Amino acid sequence: MFTHDLGGGLELRLLEHRHAPELLEAVRANAAQLDRFLNIARELHDLERARQRIQVALDRFAAGHGLEAGIWFEGHLIGTVALHGGGRTRIEVGYWLTEPFQGRGIATRAAAAVTDHAFGGLGLHRVEMRCAVDNVRSRAVPERLGFRLEGILRGSYQVGDRFIDEALYALTADAWVAPSERRL
Amino acid sequence: MFTHDLGGGLELRLLEHRHAPELLEAVRANAAQLDRFLNIARELHDLERARQRIQVALDRFAAGHGLEAGIWFEGHLIGTVALHGGGRTRIEVGYWLTEPFQGRGIATRAAAAVTDHAFGGLGLHRVEMRCAVDNVRSRAVPERLGFRLEGILRGSYQVGDRFIDEALYALTADAWVAPSERRL
Amino acid sequence: MFTHDLGGGLELRLLEHRHAPELLEAVRANAAQLDRFLNIARELHDLERARQRIQVALDRFAAGHGLEAGIWFEGHLIGTVALHGGGRTRIEVGYWLTEPFQGRGIATRAAAAVTDHAFGGLGLHRVEMRCAVDNVRSRAVPERLGFRLEGILRGSYQVGDRFIDEALYALTADAWVAPSERRL
Amino acid sequence: MFTHDLGGGLELRLLEHRHAPELLEAVRANAAQLDRFLNIARELHDLERARQRIQVALDRFAAGHGLEAGIWFEGHLIGTVALHGGGRTRIEVGYWLTEPFQGRGIATRAAAAVTDHAFGGLGLHRVEMRCAVDNVRSRAVPERLGFRLEGILRGSYQVGDRFIDEALYALTADAWVAPSERRL
Amino acid sequence: MFTHDLGGGLELRLLEHRHAPELLEAVRANAAQLDRFLNIARELHDLERARQRIQVALDRFAAGHGLEAGIWFEGHLIGTVALHGGGRTRIEVGYWLTEPFQGRGIATRAAAAVTDHAFGGLGLHRVEMRCAVDNVRSRAVPERLGFRLEGILRGSYQVGDRFIDEALYALTADAWVAPSERRL
Amino acid sequence: MFTHDLGGGLELRLLEHRHAPELLEAVRANAAQLDRFLNIARELHDLERARQRIQVALDRFAAGHGLEAGIWFEGHLIGTVALHGGGRTRIEVGYWLTEPFQGRGIATRAAAAVTDHAFGGLGLHRVEMRCAVDNVRSRAVPERLGFRLEGILRGSYQVGDRFIDEALYALTADAWVAPSERRL
Repeated sequence: MFTHDLGGGLELRLLEHRHAPELLEAVRANAAQLDRFLNIARELHDLERARQRIQVALDRFAAGHGLEAGIWFEGHLIGTVALHGGGRTRIEVGYWLTEPFQGRGIATRAAAAVTDHAFGGLGLHRVEMRCAVDNVRSRAVPERLGFRLEGILRGSYQVGDRFIDEALYALTADAWVAPSERRL
Repeated sequence: MFTHDLGGGLELRLLEHRHAPELLEAVRANAAQLDRFLNIARELHDLERARQRIQVALDRFAAGHGLEAGIWFEGHLIGTVALHGGGRTRIEVGYWLTEPFQGRGIATRAAAAVTDHAFGGLGLHRVEMRCAVDNVRSRAVPERLGFRLEGILRGSYQVGDRFIDEALYALTADAWVAPSERRL
Repeated sequence: MFTHDLGGGLELRLLEHRHAPELLEAVRANAAQLDRFLNIARELHDLERARQRIQVALDRFAAGHGLEAGIWFEGHLIGTVALHGGGRTRIEVGYWLTEPFQGRGIATRAAAAVTDHAFGGLGLHRVEMRCAVDNVRSRAVPERLGFRLEGILRGSYQVGDRFIDEALYALTADAWVAPSERRL
Repeated sequence: MFTHDLGGGLELRLLEHRHAPELLEAVRANAAQLDRFLNIARELHDLERARQRIQVALDRFAAGHGLEAGIWFEGHLIGTVALHGGGRTRIEVGYWLTEPFQGRGIATRAAAAVTDHAFGGLGLHRVEMRCAVDNVRSRAVPERLGFRLEGILRGSYQVGDRFIDEALYALTADAWVAPSERRL
Repeated sequence: MFTHDLGGGLELRLLEHRHAPELLEAVRANAAQLDRFLNIARELHDLERARQRIQVALDRFAAGHGLEAGIWFEGHLIGTVALHGGGRTRIEVGYWLTEPFQGRGIATRAAAAVTDHAFGGLGLHRVEMRCAVDNVRSRAVPERLGFRLEGILRGSYQVGDRFIDEALYALTADAWVAPSERRL
Repeated sequence: MFTHDLGGGLELRLLEHRHAPELLEAVRANAAQLDRFLNIARELHDLERARQRIQVALDRFAAGHGLEAGIWFEGHLIGTVALHGGGRTRIEVGYWLTEPFQGRGIATRAAAAVTDHAFGGLGLHRVEMRCAVDNVRSRAVPERLGFRLEGILRGSYQVGDRFIDEALYALTADAWVAPSERRL
């Protein structure tokens, strides 16, 4: 029942257990494309795994250490955006979208919303994003939001059986300009 | 960052740890009045207890067995509404408001929202409310929402060192008419 | 080795793991009749489930929040009686018997014993019983023990795929007359 | 509410949380005498510790790995008898009595009851007792019950800051003769 | 990466998860001989069980209550030596070797090393060894190290479906002479 | 009892609970210097905290996700080296030394040893080190070991109430040359 309105028919909602079938379906339908840079489609091969992933995110939320929200467009789940990892003063933003919705600025708006929450709501000092170096669309997200490229991490992520390099982007609280008036 | 808009400047948001000071303050400022029918002001006597209560509610939410949302009016926490107890097919609604905001229909709107979520979102069959028999304002909430009075429970609740009787109200899914178009 | 003697060859004993096969057998042999008003025969379909149920009850006992005792007649397990649910000041009594032993007042004597323990041993203020409205034999138990009918709960219990109404009976400590001299 | 009747006004009951004050009182009143061979009076210096000890024993009971029962004489707690330690096939019996009740065969009857339960109820193969070598009264218990002295364990138990030797007694299931007709 | 050098190409290392295949292989290859006096080959019938055993030992080490080290000879795992059981002031030594390495004094050297650690590192007062009475080679270990035979424990250990007697050996800290200069 | 010999009187040993007083003492004596770039002296203000830190490291070791070893020189604890953080395929190396032992290449030898273990023993793909940008001595460690500087992380670490920048160094398994013959 709780939502974060992104405008234009887009909404974020915390993933709950009842969303597991929708999540599984969205991931399955986009497996070929997701498999290039992420492990999510390899890992969510059945409903039980989808529920486990949601439980992990809910536990993280309950502990005050992150969250995973679904991105809904006109009632359909089209991706997720998450805050995870990090520590006492920093956190990492992750996101993915099904193919038809990529390239429209949706991930950027979703990432901006959770970044705003990380700085404003959770009071963190530093927000990071890591993108596969060859994932041009993914890298556009931190770049549009004013994140700074700090380095290329060699072999820092394993996708399937390949090790890929990641571009590390980051922003500190003092450099953040909220895209809209800040909400709690 | 996730909200449920009740209109008229009123919003529901899941209680998180950072809300503990606000919750403690609202409860403390209304202790005399809350103590008549509830234990919340007796129990939340410091920040640590406020955090514990929020943690219990977050754990319940993470387990898919309820929630506790703050009611905010123009940026101030003025009460909470919760789904708790119950079992596989039923759940209970609870709520309280600070005194200046009582008698305006706010609790009714908040209770309607979580009742809607219990039936529509969680798919439960039966929603209950228990009010102290002498708490006229509290009893108005289920009555306005069409709940049926099923019985008076003798000595079923201990407030301080007194045992009080509760009026048990309930509604089943087939009898529920959502006050507005249903939202997930 | 610990028992509560009900007289006439009847004894209560806390269920322990070694009783799982006997419990399973008693439930299986009476499944058709139990299925009318309870879920126990649907749930205990193998030894593993019987052990889980016993473990849940033992954990509740160890936490001081209830118990489940087997009812033995001349060395045979013929049903159980339990204290469960409730909260700081109240608790609920549940019971079932295999068909040949129904209608002889055995459930009433078993329920009286645990009610006595709830008031005298555990110091609770209120004891409840919930019976399916159409389960005449079950409803005779609280009625014989002087419990008061407080209301009919609509659709409050799911048996298989039906929702049934329950009669709620309750008694408070001040109204309880122990059927015999009280034992610790 | 569950008891094991030893006859002559003596009863065993599983220790529950509500017995903590009685247990603490019995131990305190006999501290000087208990301190000679046991640590119980040193460890149970307040109500919190008494509750912890009871919780440990309840958890052991719930796990099916032992128990601790109070010994009551005409409504007064005068000692305890326990099954603890051991493993898949063996377990150890422990006991203590307040001074006025020592030397009357009470510990022997209590130990016989739990030994009977260890062999008959729990199906174990071997039951052990360890007594301080100089504790003549304690050693009389296994000797009267037909346990065999298997050895003297050097420095195997620390009482306060002294290491004392223990006499190890044991019996296997085939050698056990129940002192009375066996009860479950 | 951490080792305890026994000289002559022999090393002790804490068992970690990556050693599970080697452990399983060593146990399997010696099952016929191990089954005479121990349950290890019966219990470690697959990789999952080998990992579980290692996890139990690692948890014990992390809790400061024992350890299990592999014995390596020129890069091959040929047995293990462990500290386990016991309590605040005493602990037990266990060990086994694959057949080709028995009878060379290796178990004695390994047992001496962990005994030294129990007295010197952990500060315990008493170290015990239990050997099947008929296991002549195993009994030679405590005898060479100056442990005293304290008794024969009847039916104290179950191997497969037989109950066997164990010889109990023990030593207290004051009687221990370290076989070499003591190491932390 | 398990050590990793670095030569020249230097040894690594897993930190265990009995090392807590030594660890506390070493940290306290060097607090002024450690406080410049690390939080360890602020956090380890009493024995209880020292034990907690050791427990966290032991739990990590037992889970197969890292370790913390003390660095001993001729029997004195002069610092620690750790593997922590990271994920399925990468891990981070951390270290500190008391002032008199800095500048002698000791941290480099200790870090080389655990890096070797991360690649060879744990089979990880990537090892990272993060050093405060102004901590010249600390940065010399990864540089001497052939790690590559991948970027400067702005405000990524909070020391006291300041946010400092960290230099991120990393190496992948294929680029690692063990400083000596590899040991398990």
